[in-house]
Amino acid sequence: MSDALSLDHLRGLDAGDPLKGFRADFVLPEGVIYLDGNSLGPAPKAALNALQHAGSAEWAQDLIRSWNAAGWFQLPLELGDRVGRLIGAAPGQVAVCDSTSINIFKALSAAAGLRPDRKTVLAEAGSFPTDVYIAEGFVASQPGYRLRLEGQDGASILDMLGPDVGVVLLNHVNYRSGRLADLVAVTRAIHEAGALVIWDLCHSAGALPIGLDAAEVDFAVGCSYKYLNGGPGAPAFIYVAERHQAAARQPLSGWWGHARPFAFETHYEGAPAIARFLCGTQPILSLRALKGALEVWDRVDLDALRAKSLQLTDLFIALVETRCADHGLALETPRDPAVRGSQVSFSHPHAYEIVQALIERQVIGDFRAPDVLRFGFTPLYLSHEDVWIAVETLRDILETGLWREPRFAARHAVT
Amino acid sequence: MSDALSLDHLRGLDAGDPLKGFRADFVLPEGVIYLDGNSLGPAPKAALNALQHAGSAEWAQDLIRSWNAAGWFQLPLELGDRVGRLIGAAPGQVAVCDSTSINIFKALSAAAGLRPDRKTVLAEAGSFPTDVYIAEGFVASQPGYRLRLEGQDGASILDMLGPDVGVVLLNHVNYRSGRLADLVAVTRAIHEAGALVIWDLCHSAGALPIGLDAAEVDFAVGCSYKYLNGGPGAPAFIYVAERHQAAARQPLSGWWGHARPFAFETHYEGAPAIARFLCGTQPILSLRALKGALEVWDRVDLDALRAKSLQLTDLFIALVETRCADHGLALETPRDPAVRGSQVSFSHPHAYEIVQALIERQVIGDFRAPDVLRFGFTPLYLSHEDVWIAVETLRDILETGLWREPRFAARHAVT
Repeated sequence: MSDALSLDHLRGLDAGDPLKGFRADFVLPEGVIYLDGNSLGPAPKAALNALQHAGSAEWAQDLIRSWNAAGWFQLPLELGDRVGRLIGAAPGQVAVCDSTSINIFKALSAAAGLRPDRKTVLAEAGSFPTDVYIAEGFVASQPGYRLRLEGQDGASILDMLGPDVGVVLLNHVNYRSGRLADLVAVTRAIHEAGALVIWDLCHSAGALPIGLDAAEVDFAVGCSYKYLNGGPGAPAFIYVAERHQAAARQPLSGWWGHARPFAFETHYEGAPAIARFLCGTQPILSLRALKGALEVWDRVDLDALRAKSLQLTDLFIALVETRCADHGLALETPRDPAVRGSQVSFSHPHAYEIVQALIERQVIGDFRAPDVLRFGFTPLYLSHEDVWIAVETLRDILETGLWREPRFAARHAVT
Repeated sequence: MSDALSLDHLRGLDAGDPLKGFRADFVLPEGVIYLDGNSLGPAPKAALNALQHAGSAEWAQDLIRSWNAAGWFQLPLELGDRVGRLIGAAPGQVAVCDSTSINIFKALSAAAGLRPDRKTVLAEAGSFPTDVYIAEGFVASQPGYRLRLEGQDGASILDMLGPDVGVVLLNHVNYRSGRLADLVAVTRAIHEAGALVIWDLCHSAGALPIGLDAAEVDFAVGCSYKYLNGGPGAPAFIYVAERHQAAARQPLSGWWGHARPFAFETHYEGAPAIARFLCGTQPILSLRALKGALEVWDRVDLDALRAKSLQLTDLFIALVETRCADHGLALETPRDPAVRGSQVSFSHPHAYEIVQALIERQVIGDFRAPDVLRFGFTPLYLSHEDVWIAVETLRDILETGLWREPRFAARHAVT
C-alpha cells in the first residue's frame, strides 16, 4: 500500500482537518461507521434538543400560543432562507414544506404554466423514481401533455430539447451512480432551447456548493433528511427563482399559500412571493428538528466541505481498488472528481448480501437494486480513518466470504 | 342559578364521569383551562414519550435501520387503520399522510376521475377556507371544470345537485359555528343525484362517533392535530372507500404510492389499495408523536365521549346565557345537540379583545374573524368544573370590562 493510503498518513490528514470539530455536533452510536448519510443523515445534538424543546415546552406548555410565540408559522420560510444559503439562493426564494414528490408536482405545474404552448416534459429514466412517477402523474392529469424520458433510446437530454419541450426535470447528483451534472451548462442549454429547468437537489444539497441564482436556475427541489440531517422524512424544500414568482401558479393552493391566510377569505389569492408554494399546515415537530440541524449548517464552509468530500471519496475508491481487488467490485461512480457527488457506488452480483454483512460489522452503507453497493461520504462526521476501517472491513468480508452466510440473503425494504 | 348549574352539582358529575381517568394521560400547564383542543390538541404523555424515543433511540441510535426495525415505513397505513376505528372505517381504507389540503386535492382528483362526464364541483362558501382554495386550484388546473359554492346565492347543496355535478366537498362540522351536518342523509342525497362526496372531518374526528362505512361515504379527509392530539401540524388522513380504490387515480403519484416502491422501477404503477394515495416520504418524527397520541384513543369509548361532549357544550351554553347575559354575546352554535359538534361559538363585536383577555386569565379559546369567540370541549381532559371556571372568568372579564384595556387590542395571527 502506498504511503498516501497508510493509516498513519490518514491519521495525519484527520489531525489537520478543518472540519474535524463538527463530529462533536452529532450523536452516532459507538463503533458505527455511518456511510449512509446520503439516505438518512444522523442526529445532530441540536436537532434532538430542538425536538425535545418543541415537544415538552412549545407544544405541551405553551400550546396554541406557540404558533406565534415560537415562530411555528414562520418556519417554512425561515428555514427556507437558511437552506437557501446552502444552495446559492438569495433570501425569499426557498420554502421548506411537504415532500420532495409534492414539491416536484408544484414545480412541474408552475413551470408548465409558464410555457403554455410547449406540452412535452423531459425527465431522466435513471432519475430517482419518484421524479418520473410524479411527472407521469402530472402529464396524465393534463390533456395534451406528454413525458419523454432520457436514457431509453440513447438520446441525451440536450438532444431531446425542441420547440415542444417546456420543462426539463433533472437530478443534480444521480442517486445511484453519484454522477454530478453540470448545472450551469445544462441550465444554459435548456434556456437556449426555450424551456425551463427543475433541478432535484436531493443528493447534492449539503454535499457540495450549489449556485442556483448564479446559474439562473428556474426551479429546484430537494430533501432535508439526507446530507442536511433534518431527521427521518423531514420536510423537503422548493426553490422558485424570484423572476418567476409573480407569474407562477400551482394547483395545490392551500391556505398557507394565501396572501392573507388568517383573514379566512372565501377565495384564494396566492401570496405575492415564495409563500404561494406553501399548501397546508406543516408538521411542526419535524420542522423543529430540522431547524436544530440547520444550526450546524449555519457554521459550515461549503468549499471546505467539498474539498474534504472529494478527499474521502478519492480515498475510498483508491483503497477499495487496492485492498479489495479481484473480488468483482466495479466502480459505478465517476473517477473524475469534477463530476462526482459525495457518494461512491460499486456494483457486484452479490451487492445485497455484502451490504448486509457490512451492516452487521457496523459499517452502514446501502444497497440499491439490482446490484449496487452505495456509500455516502459526509465530511461533517467522517474521518479519513473511518474510510480506512470501512474498507478493511469490506476486505475482510470479501476475503473470508462472510457475506455467503445464509442470514445475509433475506431481502427487506430499505430506503 | 339553578341547582343543575351549581358548582356542587357539577363536581358531582365529575366524580361520576367515566372518562375522568383520561386527564392523567395529558400534560397540561398548571392553572390553564384549555378550550382550544379543536385547534391544537394538548400533548398526551404517550406522544411526548414516543417523540423522545423516536428521536433519541430510533433515529440517533438505530439510524437507517429504523425504516424497517421501528416500522417507520408502515406508519401511514398502521396509523390509518387506528384512525379508521374512530371514523367508522374498516381496515385498509385510511392512510395518514401529508396535509389535509393535499389530501383534499387527491380526493378531488380521484372523485372527479370516477365521474368523468360531470365537470362541476360543489363546495361550501362557509367551509374552512383551504377546502375552497384547493377546489379552486383543482378546477383551474382542469379544462372544462367549474366550482360552485353553496351559501353565495341562498341555494343549499342539495338544491345545487344536478346532472353536471360529479363531486361534492363538505365539512362534517363547520369550523366556525360548530354545526354538525347529517352525514348519512346528505351522502344519500348526493349519491341519488349521481355524484360522489368528500367529507372533511377536521372538526369531527375524535369529537364524536362517525360511521363512514355505514353511510357509504366515498372519500373523507381530516387532520390529526385537533381532537386527535397528534401534535402541531401532525400529518392528516385520507379515507377512500374500498369499492373505489381499484379505479381511483390521483396525480400526486409519488414513490410511496407505488405497487413496489423499493423495486425502483422506471414507471409508476399504483399500489392496489389505499397505499396508492400515499405520495412522498412522510415526516416520521411527527408521525411517531401521533402514534403515541393514538395509544390514548385506542382506549376511548366514542359513545361515552359524545355523551360527555354534549353535556359540556350544553352546560357551557346554559352557563354563559345565565351568568353573562346582557353583555352582547350571541350564540352561533346550534342549540339542538343533534346538530352540534364539540365546540360552542358566540359572536360579539369585541370578540378578539375578549378572547385575548381570557387567554391572559388562563382560559384558552380562540378568535375567528370577524367576530367569533370559539371554544372547543374535549371530554378526555376537561371537567364540568373546568367549564364552570371558564364561564366565571368570562363573566368577570365582561363585568369588569377588563377586555377594554389597550393591551388586548393588538392583532396577531392565530391558527
